[in-house]
Amino acid sequence: MFTPVKNTKVYEQVIEQIKYMIVSGELKKGDRLPPERELVERLQVSRTSVREALRALQIIGLVECKQGGGNFIREQFEDNLIEPLSLMFTLQDSRNSEILELRRVLEVETASLAARSITDEELNALAEIIAGMKSHPDEQENVVLDKRFHYIIARASRNNLIVSILTAVSSLMDSFIKEAREAIINRDENKETLLEHHEKIYKALADHDEKKAAKVMEDHMNMIIKNMDLY
Amino acid sequence: MFTPVKNTKVYEQVIEQIKYMIVSGELKKGDRLPPERELVERLQVSRTSVREALRALQIIGLVECKQGGGNFIREQFEDNLIEPLSLMFTLQDSRNSEILELRRVLEVETASLAARSITDEELNALAEIIAGMKSHPDEQENVVLDKRFHYIIARASRNNLIVSILTAVSSLMDSFIKEAREAIINRDENKETLLEHHEKIYKALADHDEKKAAKVMEDHMNMIIKNMDLY
Repeated sequence: MFTPVKNTKVYEQVIEQIKYMIVSGELKKGDRLPPERELVERLQVSRTSVREALRALQIIGLVECKQGGGNFIREQFEDNLIEPLSLMFTLQDSRNSEILELRRVLEVETASLAARSITDEELNALAEIIAGMKSHPDEQENVVLDKRFHYIIARASRNNLIVSILTAVSSLMDSFIKEAREAIINRDENKETLLEHHEKIYKALADHDEKKAAKVMEDHMNMIIKNMDLY
Repeated sequence: MFTPVKNTKVYEQVIEQIKYMIVSGELKKGDRLPPERELVERLQVSRTSVREALRALQIIGLVECKQGGGNFIREQFEDNLIEPLSLMFTLQDSRNSEILELRRVLEVETASLAARSITDEELNALAEIIAGMKSHPDEQENVVLDKRFHYIIARASRNNLIVSILTAVSSLMDSFIKEAREAIINRDENKETLLEHHEKIYKALADHDEKKAAKVMEDHMNMIIKNMDLY
């Protein structure tokens, strides 16, 4: 299982070994890593190199150090994407419209996939959110409800890869276009249209109509993008 | 510019400061970072903490250390996504179909966006690739031509965020379903259909027909996904 000693630093080799344990299935989500001294013995490297490697894995969010000691493979991974996406976005001088284009296409896909596999429980959760939206929540609550609505649909797509990227994209929106996002959701003349959109999306999902779900989600996204232009 | 000293380690604060330099525009792609001793003075931290931070930034692929000394902000960022996506994919016990669903939706979107903004030069490059595909390349060349074709279209979408994710997805395919991908491209009974698809995609892009481009790209992706099922 040892990789050949290339022109890499020792801690990089330690990282490779830990990744190998993941790929081979020895380590799974939430698992505790072997203690430092065991890694030192197993990998025949110095304690310093093991510590450097663990620190690096903590920084990229793959490993978390829990109080009381012990390093664990993290359960949640979306964060791993947010950092690089966000820095990439800044460094590439990207336009806000790029985030929205990406969000639109992923949301439309999740709506279509969700129409296939959404459960009654998930549909009930969506219905409750719509009821909440109707009960005149304050601006902050409204944003939370909106995010939750879309998140449930994303999860119902049963595609974890897309859910992760979409969650990261939502974070990007919070970093770069938060105010515009909130303004659009809370603008009075939009409220009725948005509610209507959410109801149509709910109905298409409840009917398990993939095409319709994709179509109404696309209308919804296009309305948001159009409003963003106005902003 | 200094963040409050929370319950974070010193090297994490150094990383935050460097990120701040990026977000504020002080550091751009390809820029050289201030030398270690300058960072030590500016941030009032130990040399060890600065080194730990730089090492972490190298590991996540944001910073590269060039021969002859000096740390630079990297020009290419796709790699930053590949690692976390790939580990995430493994740890979440994801299905191969998740990669393909993600690729389909992003490719269809890039085709639609590219129809709007593709240049004559890019169209010529696509035409050359199609000519290359017709000239009976060997299996390996064929895969390279196919990847290049799709990459040019992705770039022509003028959405760097989508290009980055699509590049990472293509890497995921290479890690997890490389053989299936190559087999589909090189299977004799597929060759004619694939060539036809590429020609149709080229034509729709040359006509700057967004809907048509999306449609023919979707047919192309669906054919690949169907073949993946057979594999």
